[in-house]
Amino acid sequence: MPITVLGLDADDTLWHNETFYQSTRQRFNELLADFVDAARLEEEIEATERRNLGLYGYGAKGFTLSMMETAIQVSNGNISGRALSEILTIGRELMNHPVEPLPGVHEALQALSEQYRLVLITKGDLFHQESKLAASGLGSFFSGVEIVSEKKRATYERIFSRHGSGPEHAAMAGNSVRSDVLPALEAGSYAALIPFHIVWAHEDAPLPTDHPRFAELPSLAELPRWLADVAENDAH
Amino acid sequence: MPITVLGLDADDTLWHNETFYQSTRQRFNELLADFVDAARLEEEIEATERRNLGLYGYGAKGFTLSMMETAIQVSNGNISGRALSEILTIGRELMNHPVEPLPGVHEALQALSEQYRLVLITKGDLFHQESKLAASGLGSFFSGVEIVSEKKRATYERIFSRHGSGPEHAAMAGNSVRSDVLPALEAGSYAALIPFHIVWAHEDAPLPTDHPRFAELPSLAELPRWLADVAENDAH
Repeated sequence: MPITVLGLDADDTLWHNETFYQSTRQRFNELLADFVDAARLEEEIEATERRNLGLYGYGAKGFTLSMMETAIQVSNGNISGRALSEILTIGRELMNHPVEPLPGVHEALQALSEQYRLVLITKGDLFHQESKLAASGLGSFFSGVEIVSEKKRATYERIFSRHGSGPEHAAMAGNSVRSDVLPALEAGSYAALIPFHIVWAHEDAPLPTDHPRFAELPSLAELPRWLADVAENDAH
Repeated sequence: MPITVLGLDADDTLWHNETFYQSTRQRFNELLADFVDAARLEEEIEATERRNLGLYGYGAKGFTLSMMETAIQVSNGNISGRALSEILTIGRELMNHPVEPLPGVHEALQALSEQYRLVLITKGDLFHQESKLAASGLGSFFSGVEIVSEKKRATYERIFSRHGSGPEHAAMAGNSVRSDVLPALEAGSYAALIPFHIVWAHEDAPLPTDHPRFAELPSLAELPRWLADVAENDAH
């Protein structure tokens, strides 16, 4: 049986996200420059994020709370109210950033949606991710949206069974080896890695280069052809 | 065809939530007492929450961000770093509060789960709500969990079609007229209001007392009997 359902990651696969985080971190560094140098601040904010991950989960709201906590801490409480307000503002701007599909994404999804059921599968804040999908103008290509707290083997098994005929007849595409590729392969699905030029530090993992159901593609525009090749090889 | 699937709201239906918000607000008031009286502070925090709702959605993380914003604003930036840290702490405690099922809930869900497919349907942070369900010990009674950004007619139509045989063969139970009762009735489902003693200000709406598919019940323990009555009347 061929592939019937295609899972797609959202942030940094369909649209820029990490780019906005990087510029938010940059502005955060500038706001704290009187108290701490950039290198130490980055260590501190990463430590705060890690400490809070079990409580806040992923997403821009938790990141904003971690910025506030770190700012108060590294300044020993001496940061001005004005600078703290500015941190809330850059957090809101991060949540509200323009959502523009990456080059070629709109056309690729159009082609893919004619052949497969597309399901958006992403971590993060439910509310924020739904807003971004709406703002992207890509919503109509998807027959399902699954905002999940973790991307594990069982996550893909469940979603590909719910929206298709099980994980073996599904493919996942995204920019993270650890979240999009490895657990989807474990579930028995196909998986395409579409690397983004900035890789989030938490997401690193070795590439499963020899796996028969894996491919690394330069962009989402290559996905329709790879899936067609997979189907042809499967038929022989 | 009888009712096959039962939707249940979470916060203040299965476990206390508003109680913890109230005590968080109380501690917030105390922290700001030097700058503003409690009545004005409550107006300010409500205005901030309302202003941020479109960006933050529902949930404890957004509420914590709104407390920080309000604290900086009403103190003209003069609130101490120590007090701001304390606000982050009470926000974390709110996210981490003990999740104890309300009296009778465990037994009622046990009985209901033998007869109906139970689906948890709740707004709020995905990550936080999943954590609370896990902490409640009630997770095994549910065959589905749907964290949604809004509870509208289309929400219930979609969920009751996905988990059952459509909204007409489903019932929803919760503590909010506006979120749990009215849109479920509009979708064609049955709806039971189980009032909580504290009603969140945003959630007020008139009761649909004359609707044939509506009931107000004093507790979740009454739900199995009402559903049985409904089934019996339906059969005649």
